[in-house]
Amino acid sequence: MNAQQPHTPVTVLGLGAMGRAIAGAIHRGGHPTTVWNRSAGRADDLVAQGGVTLAPSAAEAVRASPVVVVCLLDDASVRDTLAALVDPLAGRLVVNVTTVTPNQARETATWAAEHGIEYLDGAIMAIPEMIGLPVASLLYSGSQAAFDTHRNLLELLGGARWFGEDAGLASLYDLALLGSMYSMFAGFAYGAALVGSEGVPAAEFAEMAAPWLTAMTGGLAGHAEHFDSADYTAETQSLTFNKAAVDTIAEAGRDQGVGTEVIAVVQHLIDRQITAGHGKESFARIFEGIRRPPTGGGGNEGR
Amino acid sequence: MNAQQPHTPVTVLGLGAMGRAIAGAIHRGGHPTTVWNRSAGRADDLVAQGGVTLAPSAAEAVRASPVVVVCLLDDASVRDTLAALVDPLAGRLVVNVTTVTPNQARETATWAAEHGIEYLDGAIMAIPEMIGLPVASLLYSGSQAAFDTHRNLLELLGGARWFGEDAGLASLYDLALLGSMYSMFAGFAYGAALVGSEGVPAAEFAEMAAPWLTAMTGGLAGHAEHFDSADYTAETQSLTFNKAAVDTIAEAGRDQGVGTEVIAVVQHLIDRQITAGHGKESFARIFEGIRRPPTGGGGNEGR
Repeated sequence: MNAQQPHTPVTVLGLGAMGRAIAGAIHRGGHPTTVWNRSAGRADDLVAQGGVTLAPSAAEAVRASPVVVVCLLDDASVRDTLAALVDPLAGRLVVNVTTVTPNQARETATWAAEHGIEYLDGAIMAIPEMIGLPVASLLYSGSQAAFDTHRNLLELLGGARWFGEDAGLASLYDLALLGSMYSMFAGFAYGAALVGSEGVPAAEFAEMAAPWLTAMTGGLAGHAEHFDSADYTAETQSLTFNKAAVDTIAEAGRDQGVGTEVIAVVQHLIDRQITAGHGKESFARIFEGIRRPPTGGGGNEGR
Repeated sequence: MNAQQPHTPVTVLGLGAMGRAIAGAIHRGGHPTTVWNRSAGRADDLVAQGGVTLAPSAAEAVRASPVVVVCLLDDASVRDTLAALVDPLAGRLVVNVTTVTPNQARETATWAAEHGIEYLDGAIMAIPEMIGLPVASLLYSGSQAAFDTHRNLLELLGGARWFGEDAGLASLYDLALLGSMYSMFAGFAYGAALVGSEGVPAAEFAEMAAPWLTAMTGGLAGHAEHFDSADYTAETQSLTFNKAAVDTIAEAGRDQGVGTEVIAVVQHLIDRQITAGHGKESFARIFEGIRRPPTGGGGNEGR
């Protein structure tokens, strides 16, 4: 930030729950804030509070600020919206916090470079209510110069970390963390269904599962060591031992009449490694069947 | 414990890593300890330390103590071993800490009752190295009288909690917690494979994922509330919103060439609920497809 212009004007395109939260946090941070949304009415609250300007068109919104935050539904909306704004965007910075795949982020970065637009891709590890609080974490990749220049602005939204010039990296980390979370949630639902089949309230199970899973995250660094070294020598329990446990977990599910898909995936990953002769190695060995799925993307069949 | 006999003699059948750890902890707790294992040599260390007696047969091991802890490979080993010990076991307490399904625990409890044997089923939330430390947690179900009488003994192994007279409950909780853990581990492996596809070390990812997943366990109580009430009204993000995120996570996996089975299960659970018309409800709605799998146990196909 330079002394002449301590509060860079910022435009926010897209006023879903997240876009509104972002515009609000930027405005509260003292930046002249302009907003635009494809459908009207979404800016009413922000404008009513004073200080936020609703632009009559996306192009006018863009022209109001050197920094344009894009927070739309998906990659297709981003493409459609930005394609019509090539001229006004030239020479400005686009910070795209829409959830996209790494490849989509890379393609938008390439498109931006071709049109003289600076590009930073962002991934938001937060729900709208968390924006502006220290608990919100935002991951960025793309232009390091843009990240460094606007770091104070970006930190108005939450903790900000830059991962590299490859614009796809923020999304990659984001999706990797979210994927881990969804798997944990699915596993919790399976466990709750198991005990629930005998009338145990899920709330009671959650009280046990939350500290248990928290304790078990202590094992992730050990798994990572196996993944990174590709040395899966078992310190204690072998994959065969884990197979017996996981098969028992699935059998209990069938006995209790609950759906076992969630645990069947783990069985499948284990069985694949045991069939390949790795039964004496560690559970972490399942990573190899994910990192290098069977020929022809065999791990991806059916989608 | 009564004053005449402060340290009940205890027998441990089965001397794998876990059985040896249990026998060691009981012996250190001051109980006369007798051990037996089908194959010889497993007791050498324990006997060499002094005070632990290796019995020449399972029957003689059982006759040495009123409490018999059974820690074998699996349910089949338990049945084979106990079936040959009906006479010596009569009037004694069997504490079976072998990993079994709830139904297997119930069947053994029924068998024990038919032969005048008291029965407590135990599930060990620990690896052998943790036995005897406060961090080890053991779940019990079956005879409450036996649990109350021998609580001090049981607490030599780790934290002890009794879940009910239904002998299957300890195993049910155990398998539910383990199932959640395995799912979390599989999700972590998927995330590590995603970032690993761009050369990010898994160790670096683990440093982010462990606190992230720990923070996300804060959401489990909210999911449980939905499960228990079967009211899935979405507070913020709908299942349709989650579908977009999870589909993006899977698409990124395919783009990066990693196996997507782990996240495909979550997609499947979400799609099933959206197809059934629940797209505006909360993500927690996936529980219904696990609790009540599609007709004919359709969630269990292929296993």
